[in-house]
Amino acid sequence: MKVIPGGVTAAKGFRAGGIHCGIKYKNKDLALIYSEDPCVACGLFTQNKVQAAPISLSRAHLRNNRAQAIVINSGCANCCTGKQGIRDAREICASVAEKLGISSNDVLAASTGTIGKRLPLKKIKKALGPLVDRLSPQRGLAAARAIMTTDTKPKQVAVELKIGGTEVRLGGIAKGAGMIHPCLATMLAFITTDAAIDKRRLEKALKDAVDNSFNSITVEGDTSTNDMVLALANGKACNRGLRARDFKAFQKALDFVCLSLAKMIIKDAEGASRFVEIQVEQAKDIAQAKKVAFKVANSPLVKTAIFGGNPNWGRIAAAAGCADKAVRADRLNIYLGAVKVLQKGAALNVNRERLNKIFRKGKIEIKIILGLGRSAARVFTCDLSDRYVKINAEY
Amino acid sequence: MKVIPGGVTAAKGFRAGGIHCGIKYKNKDLALIYSEDPCVACGLFTQNKVQAAPISLSRAHLRNNRAQAIVINSGCANCCTGKQGIRDAREICASVAEKLGISSNDVLAASTGTIGKRLPLKKIKKALGPLVDRLSPQRGLAAARAIMTTDTKPKQVAVELKIGGTEVRLGGIAKGAGMIHPCLATMLAFITTDAAIDKRRLEKALKDAVDNSFNSITVEGDTSTNDMVLALANGKACNRGLRARDFKAFQKALDFVCLSLAKMIIKDAEGASRFVEIQVEQAKDIAQAKKVAFKVANSPLVKTAIFGGNPNWGRIAAAAGCADKAVRADRLNIYLGAVKVLQKGAALNVNRERLNKIFRKGKIEIKIILGLGRSAARVFTCDLSDRYVKINAEY
Repeated sequence: MKVIPGGVTAAKGFRAGGIHCGIKYKNKDLALIYSEDPCVACGLFTQNKVQAAPISLSRAHLRNNRAQAIVINSGCANCCTGKQGIRDAREICASVAEKLGISSNDVLAASTGTIGKRLPLKKIKKALGPLVDRLSPQRGLAAARAIMTTDTKPKQVAVELKIGGTEVRLGGIAKGAGMIHPCLATMLAFITTDAAIDKRRLEKALKDAVDNSFNSITVEGDTSTNDMVLALANGKACNRGLRARDFKAFQKALDFVCLSLAKMIIKDAEGASRFVEIQVEQAKDIAQAKKVAFKVANSPLVKTAIFGGNPNWGRIAAAAGCADKAVRADRLNIYLGAVKVLQKGAALNVNRERLNKIFRKGKIEIKIILGLGRSAARVFTCDLSDRYVKINAEY
Repeated sequence: MKVIPGGVTAAKGFRAGGIHCGIKYKNKDLALIYSEDPCVACGLFTQNKVQAAPISLSRAHLRNNRAQAIVINSGCANCCTGKQGIRDAREICASVAEKLGISSNDVLAASTGTIGKRLPLKKIKKALGPLVDRLSPQRGLAAARAIMTTDTKPKQVAVELKIGGTEVRLGGIAKGAGMIHPCLATMLAFITTDAAIDKRRLEKALKDAVDNSFNSITVEGDTSTNDMVLALANGKACNRGLRARDFKAFQKALDFVCLSLAKMIIKDAEGASRFVEIQVEQAKDIAQAKKVAFKVANSPLVKTAIFGGNPNWGRIAAAAGCADKAVRADRLNIYLGAVKVLQKGAALNVNRERLNKIFRKGKIEIKIILGLGRSAARVFTCDLSDRYVKINAEY
């Protein structure tokens, strides 16, 4: 497997584009991803009980496991918009389908932005003509830009691998920035591949890849109403059927694409100045490991200490201690970087200057050893800065 | 019942004091509360699994349901200090007992401050003599000051009520500021009363009062390692035995004292500029109501919107939607102040200027109606400001 340039249009037969249609005051706000051939498709959606209209519509359109286009807007979430919101999303899909000459059922929709406002249908429909006309394999980056909200950078990645001697490509784009929490956050990610793969295996691979990437990142613990990850496979690579070994290679490539995009989301999180990796080990099961890791990752006290470059590990111990009732202080060990600071619940005498250095790096590694079992989990997050507060106070 | 001046020394027979012993660079950092007679005593402690040494020691000393003094220090949590930490706390209790001429078992201990450092025993023991000498019914405020960390104001309250014609007094002090979350936060509260009440009823009354006060406030969702609420009743009022009606009056007075102190903690929370009351109604049970209320109260996106005076209620809906799997968007109603903004999951067309006004007040009321049952809960919190980040980045 090797990393190649491009993103969502790196795989054969995919085209994309993005334009400014006027939902936002300025900047691109409408994206379209299109495959020349119908694709095997699957998706994962937010677990928030308040769900945006495009979530239910895309779910419905995926029932036949097939799709050929994805239309995405930023600037308006189309959430808490009732039945009218569903009608609006449906009308946009129909309009896209008509212009592309495909079935409306093969168009998926995604939205991100402010909750509680209707989509400006006229503006969007007017822009769809030029958007379809300009679709191109070179415009994946424009699509990545058009789905941004408070992101400061477009996020894309692509890889190439061999399956039975045939070149197969896999790429994707994503947006993130705020309201990022597992079970999908205000994040959207769209993955395309020219691999020939059946729906069952595409879905399995996507689920596994997302668990260890988009479902392992958090900015502030808020789960959005609009999250989705969609994967489209058009089979254009014409690889042989996937043997077990091939599937493993595909999984590995998909893992890489999802994790790369997830890390880009954290690095570009609202106000973030440091990238934080939290590893929890010796948990009784993965659920417990994740629970502890997320409690620490979402602790405002831990996050502000990291922002301040302040190795106040007592806050890490306190967060771990209230994450799960099975945690035992007398078995708890904590490392900052390679330095052990807590052993079986008691502080070790550590050179403070050494800890300061670790906490002033751009990337911070925290390891928490529970001493309760053999499971582990890794979660990625960022610090909590005054800039995060400003961005979200004013948004 | 009427509010009277004073705090922890308002009830008959209680004396207190506070001095600077040198744990902190400046300001009072050591407090002592003392009753002339032995008291019926009970306590509630943090549910964090990482617990400070004074937690286990005070628990042990409460096994006989009796106490006569409480020694409290700020500036050092005596947490993650292993067996040495227990020995240190025990030595301080012994020293206090010796100076007061009481049993060491009747001294309770509490600490608040940085985790992972040992208490400076010498400094503390040296200060205990002068502290005991200066104990007085007039120095309750000095004790309230000595337990402060990032609090900007001392917190005390007292009330007087009649039980069977006899005047009974009840008062308390508390400290809060950061790491505040239910199941007791980095908060300490000490309640004294001269009521004659047995241990069983004192404990029941305390538990109920704490559930609706200290366990219903949150600053940022982090539960501390050192929280405790202690109640001491010395019987000096010589009221008749508590009949059902008397107990009700006592409970009401204790509720008032605890809620007053809890609200003071939120109003003086780190960096807080707005006081927020979140009411959840029509939940299937109280646990669900509290779960939703706390999820909203702890959402950084909700808190920063409130800081910004920005009535972005979509974030409230999103937080409620991921609080509990039983939440149903199509039954969800939300009010900001008296204005309904969301009806059965769909946005209402509301005058934005009116909402802006509500969100720019010092006190903000949010009501969330789940439409799932008949239970309700109320939670108090504050906004998340850039000052909170600064305070905690530098602490």
